[in-house]
Amino acid sequence: MVEPRVYQALNQPVVSHLDPYFFQVVEDCRELLRQYFATENAFTLAMSGTGSAGMQTAVANFVEPGAKFLVLANGYFADRMSEMGRRQGARVSRLERPWGQGFDQAEVCEVIRRERPAVVGFVQAETSTGVYQKSEFICQAAHEVGALVIADCVTSLGAMPVEVDANGIDIAYSCTQKGLSCPPGLAPVTVSPRAMEWLKARQTTPADWYLDLKLLADYYEGAHRYHHTAPISLFYALREGLVAIAEEGFDARLARHKRAHLAFVAGIEAMGLSMLVEEGKRIWNLNTVRVPPGVDELAVRKRLLVASDIEILGGFGPLAGQIFRIGIMGPLAKEESVTLLLGALEQALREEGYQVPRSGVEAAKEVFDSQPATV
Amino acid sequence: MVEPRVYQALNQPVVSHLDPYFFQVVEDCRELLRQYFATENAFTLAMSGTGSAGMQTAVANFVEPGAKFLVLANGYFADRMSEMGRRQGARVSRLERPWGQGFDQAEVCEVIRRERPAVVGFVQAETSTGVYQKSEFICQAAHEVGALVIADCVTSLGAMPVEVDANGIDIAYSCTQKGLSCPPGLAPVTVSPRAMEWLKARQTTPADWYLDLKLLADYYEGAHRYHHTAPISLFYALREGLVAIAEEGFDARLARHKRAHLAFVAGIEAMGLSMLVEEGKRIWNLNTVRVPPGVDELAVRKRLLVASDIEILGGFGPLAGQIFRIGIMGPLAKEESVTLLLGALEQALREEGYQVPRSGVEAAKEVFDSQPATV
Repeated sequence: MVEPRVYQALNQPVVSHLDPYFFQVVEDCRELLRQYFATENAFTLAMSGTGSAGMQTAVANFVEPGAKFLVLANGYFADRMSEMGRRQGARVSRLERPWGQGFDQAEVCEVIRRERPAVVGFVQAETSTGVYQKSEFICQAAHEVGALVIADCVTSLGAMPVEVDANGIDIAYSCTQKGLSCPPGLAPVTVSPRAMEWLKARQTTPADWYLDLKLLADYYEGAHRYHHTAPISLFYALREGLVAIAEEGFDARLARHKRAHLAFVAGIEAMGLSMLVEEGKRIWNLNTVRVPPGVDELAVRKRLLVASDIEILGGFGPLAGQIFRIGIMGPLAKEESVTLLLGALEQALREEGYQVPRSGVEAAKEVFDSQPATV
Repeated sequence: MVEPRVYQALNQPVVSHLDPYFFQVVEDCRELLRQYFATENAFTLAMSGTGSAGMQTAVANFVEPGAKFLVLANGYFADRMSEMGRRQGARVSRLERPWGQGFDQAEVCEVIRRERPAVVGFVQAETSTGVYQKSEFICQAAHEVGALVIADCVTSLGAMPVEVDANGIDIAYSCTQKGLSCPPGLAPVTVSPRAMEWLKARQTTPADWYLDLKLLADYYEGAHRYHHTAPISLFYALREGLVAIAEEGFDARLARHKRAHLAFVAGIEAMGLSMLVEEGKRIWNLNTVRVPPGVDELAVRKRLLVASDIEILGGFGPLAGQIFRIGIMGPLAKEESVTLLLGALEQALREEGYQVPRSGVEAAKEVFDSQPATV
C-alpha cells in the first residue's frame, strides 16, 4: 500500500532532469536512503528502473566477464541473480539450499575459502520463501578472500534492518514499492568506497550503458553531466515516502513491522497453521504460511480477494501450492490490518473445510496488547 | 509540459503488477501506441525505463556481439547508439555528417550496399540538432541487404509523423515526456514481425536481462509470467496521455504542432535570426535557432528564465554556444505560447544588444491567422 501523502507528491509539476530543484530532491533522497540502508556510503542513489534493474545494476557493474561469481541460492531471486551473472559472462557457481532454508556460517565460509570468488551474491530477504539471511559472516568470509559482496535488499529496506555498514555489504539494492511504501519504478542502490575503488579501476566497459554507475556518478554528482532523463515524478514520490518514514522514526517503523509480524505469527499458530521458515530467520514484512493438508490454496486466496478485498500471494517454483505469501508492511503493519486479515483468512479457511482450533484474531490481539508499541 | 489531466491519473491507486486491471491499462497503451507509431506491429509496448532504456532495448536485443552495426551519425544520440553497439560487442561502422545536416539517399544506399551491415541505426528526430530524417529510403536499402533497421523516435512520437510501417522501420523506440506530454519514465517500443522472427531465432542470449524482449513478451502477452514489477503509476499516466491525444485526434495534433512550428519560424526569421536546419528537414517540436553573432547564448537563456519563466536549451558538442534549442510541444504548441515565447525572446535579445529588425510576434500571428487550425 502506497502512503496516501505519496500520491499527492506525484502531482508536483515535472521539472527538467537538469533542474537544480530536481537535484535537490535527489540529494534529499540520497541522504535519507543512507540512513535506512544504515550506511555512510557516499555513493547512494536511486536507479531509474524497478528492483530488477537494481539487481542488474549490481551485477552488470561489479561482475566482469570471466569473473567467478558465487551465488548463495535458496530462492527465486538468487536464481535470477545467477542468470544475470551468466549473461554478463561470469563463471557462476552456486551454493544451493532448499527454498525456505537459510545459510549457516560454516558452509558459507567453507565454500568461499574453497572457491575464492571475485564476487559473492546473496538475498537478504527472499520474497519467494520468506527467509531473512543474516549476512555479517558472509561479508567477512568474502572480504577475507578479497571478494565484493552484493546483497539483494528488495524486500528488507524500510521494514527490516539492512545494516549495510555493520554487515559489511559492498553493494546493496532495493525497490521503492515494498518497505518504503512508494509506487514501483526506482531502485535504491548503495555502494561501498571499497567497491567504488574497484569500479574505478575496472578495465572492461560494462555492456549496460543505461545502468552504468560511472556514468551515473557524473550525472548525479559533481558536474551533473546529462546521462538520461530521470523519472522526475517518481523521485518526488520517493522523497515524500522517505520523509514520512523519518517523521515516524526509522527505528519505530522497524519496531512496528516486527510487532505486526509477531502478532500475525501468534494468530497463525493459534489457528493451527505453521510458518514455512523457522523462528529467527523470518522476514517480518513477508510472511510465508504453510497451506494445511487438503486445503486448496488458490481457492482460499480467491475467497479472500472476493469477500474481503485482500490480496495475498501463493508460492511458486518448488513451493507452488504449498504456501501463502502474505505481505504486512507500510501503512498495513498495524493492529487493525493484521486482525482484519486474520479474521478474513480464518473465514476463508473454514469455507474451504479447514477446522480452525482457536481464533487467530484473539491471539494476535494478545501480542499487540502485551508488546509495547515500540519494541 | 505534462497535460494537467495526466497528473490526476498518477493518483490512481497502485495495483499489483500481475493484476488484470494493470494488464488492461497496458493493452490500452499498446493499442494507442500502435496508432501513433502508425504500425500494425503486434509487439508494441512500453519499457520500464526512460528513452535511453528504449535505445538500449533496441541495441541489446537486435545487435549481437560480432555483428556489423552501421550507424548514421549526425548528432549526439547517434553517438550514444554507436557507444551502446560497441558495448554489445558489435563491429560498429559509422556514416558521419556534420551536426545539423541530414542524410541523402545516394550516400546511404552506397554505404549500406558496400558495408552490408546486419543492423542499421539512425535517429529520426535528433534532439541535439533539430534534424528530422526521412527514412523510407534507409529502410529500403537496409532491407535489400537483409539488415534490420533501428530508428530513434524519442522526439518525434506524438508530435511528428513516425510512420513505422510506411517507412519500413523494424525497431522504433521513444519516450513519454516529449511528444506524448507525459512524465518521463517509460520507453514505448515497437518491433516488426520480421524483427520478432529474427529475435526468436537469435542464438546468443542478450547480456541485458531487464530489457530482454523475449522475457517481456511472456510478461505482457499470453501467460503474463512475472518478469519485473512495472512502474504502475507511470502506465496510468501514459494511458491518460494517450487517450488525451486520441480525443484531440492524432492528425489534428500533428497539424497543431506543424502550425506552431511554421509560425515560430516565421517569427524567428522576421527577427533577423535563422534556423540551423534547412527547410523541409526540421523537427516541428524541437526548433534550433542560430545564436546571432556577438550575442551571449547563456545570458539570453538566463534572462528568459528569470524574466519570463521560460526555459530553452543551448547547443552542446560541436554546436555549443551556437544555437538555441527550443521545444514547442504538447499543450504549448499553440498561438498564445508561441507569441509569448517570441516576445520574451525578442526582449531578452534586445537586452543583450541584438537589434531586432521586425517583431517576431506579428509575423507568427500572421501565420496563425492565415493557416487553418487543421493543416
